[in-house]
Amino acid sequence: MSKFEEVQVFCPATVANLSCGFDVLGLCLKGVGDEMTIRITDEPGVRIKRISGADLSLEVEQNVAGVAAVSLLNFLKPKVGFEIEIDKKIKPGSGIGSSAASAAGAVYGINKLLGTPLHRRDLIPFAMQGEVLASKAFHADNVAPALLGGFTIVKGYHPLEVLRIDAPDDLYVTLVHPKIELRTADSRVVLPAQLPLKTAVQQSGNLAAFVHALHTKDYLLLGRATKDVIAEPHREKLIPLFSLAKSEALKSGALGVGISGSGPSIYALCEGKASAQEVSRAWKLSYILNNIEADVFISQVNAKGTELI
Amino acid sequence: MSKFEEVQVFCPATVANLSCGFDVLGLCLKGVGDEMTIRITDEPGVRIKRISGADLSLEVEQNVAGVAAVSLLNFLKPKVGFEIEIDKKIKPGSGIGSSAASAAGAVYGINKLLGTPLHRRDLIPFAMQGEVLASKAFHADNVAPALLGGFTIVKGYHPLEVLRIDAPDDLYVTLVHPKIELRTADSRVVLPAQLPLKTAVQQSGNLAAFVHALHTKDYLLLGRATKDVIAEPHREKLIPLFSLAKSEALKSGALGVGISGSGPSIYALCEGKASAQEVSRAWKLSYILNNIEADVFISQVNAKGTELI
Repeated sequence: MSKFEEVQVFCPATVANLSCGFDVLGLCLKGVGDEMTIRITDEPGVRIKRISGADLSLEVEQNVAGVAAVSLLNFLKPKVGFEIEIDKKIKPGSGIGSSAASAAGAVYGINKLLGTPLHRRDLIPFAMQGEVLASKAFHADNVAPALLGGFTIVKGYHPLEVLRIDAPDDLYVTLVHPKIELRTADSRVVLPAQLPLKTAVQQSGNLAAFVHALHTKDYLLLGRATKDVIAEPHREKLIPLFSLAKSEALKSGALGVGISGSGPSIYALCEGKASAQEVSRAWKLSYILNNIEADVFISQVNAKGTELI
Repeated sequence: MSKFEEVQVFCPATVANLSCGFDVLGLCLKGVGDEMTIRITDEPGVRIKRISGADLSLEVEQNVAGVAAVSLLNFLKPKVGFEIEIDKKIKPGSGIGSSAASAAGAVYGINKLLGTPLHRRDLIPFAMQGEVLASKAFHADNVAPALLGGFTIVKGYHPLEVLRIDAPDDLYVTLVHPKIELRTADSRVVLPAQLPLKTAVQQSGNLAAFVHALHTKDYLLLGRATKDVIAEPHREKLIPLFSLAKSEALKSGALGVGISGSGPSIYALCEGKASAQEVSRAWKLSYILNNIEADVFISQVNAKGTELI
């Protein structure tokens, strides 16, 4: 058992896909995330006591944090139970891994309270159970960066294998969340089931270059590799002002721009804080001038992932 | 002008695709390559004087080295001309970049004789003109590693961008060339024009992992990422004994096995020479026992690429 009876957990938002890495790449954000309080109870099982900031179910089986927690407990079989309180700061359906943050936070916190029987890497499959509830898909491209921090590659699922890469030190991410809700499932529907081999090759070249750029800390290459020929052409129409936001960001010096996860948030990779602020300024102006409500914020890449507050 | 009147060039064989990097990845071999003699002549233009080792056309416009050379001369417009002699050691249609070697050697040698006006990286598009003749496709996945050495990523063609990664020091490649000739164009025909999005994602995960493994020098991950769910399922039937060769190599300790380029050669990545020799032994035995003529050889990765002898 652990010395903690209660933990407070920071559950970071994440950007999945990163344009060239559809269903493969992700990165962990620092500036935005949920907060969770988890405490041990004598009564076994999981209870969600309180959720602020979003209209989500307190029913354990209908809540991603609940589902993830239960799946971990089914594996660890502790004698105690857990109470969870969630302060949602990440808007559900915003495209920056809201459900993944809750799922990651729940399993991370419970693991801590039980004296860290599992490595954080081993928590990924349990957090993924929460994602199944949220998006009907068994995917790790948000929970992996949420738990591990930095950039992550989901190599594959059979068996599950996730790799982690440090971000270049001076990399910043600017994000805009146009205030519509876009469910991952709805955003999946617009994607064709088949794609031309040529398109797959084009995407592959950029993905390989992106991973190379991360290792060589080549900011400009990272930007040139931030291209999506698979999902973006189909999804951009779902996102208010996407094409203007993209061109404005690039004009303002962003390295690369794309849809965060399945949208509607848009991310821009920037070298240095000043550049990220330029993009932020341009986006705020664009959305105001077009009368579209939007949140704009800046974040560095979070090297640590989910952690105790 | 240069101090050389005549150069001898080693034109290395290459392995393209590397399973997960269809039309993107390539590596340069050390143990096998063509040799070329190129000399300056007063008469402008290009002449192919002699070819040994393969039945190839001496007509400049029908020869990949000739076509590549002419395309370079059209750009550099020197007052002199060039005579080329080619000693083919790489069998055309073997799947280890025979045409790319000749094309790369021609432009490399001519560039040297003219006093190196271009970087070797800038020679890639001229060598690619030779590939168009050979396979009706404008591709760089063999000429790039032939010219640059190491591992290469073809990021994309518009504009052409090629990246280079050093090989892990102790990486060996074992190759078997079952003696049938398989033309790249014929091997392209069996590939479907469309593929499922799920398949593209699976391939992407392995490609990203492969590039990561090269940078982190993680031999085992390199092996686990050597998977091809796009071309191999369609091409393996064109290659004598493919599935036996693959399982024998893996049993003998190979990290990963796949089709070299468009085949029929098969490559195995191995950690250390002893492991590569194990695979070589197993393959020699398998092909002899099945009465299929085959050449088996071992090579390290060539860090230098095309070079003067």
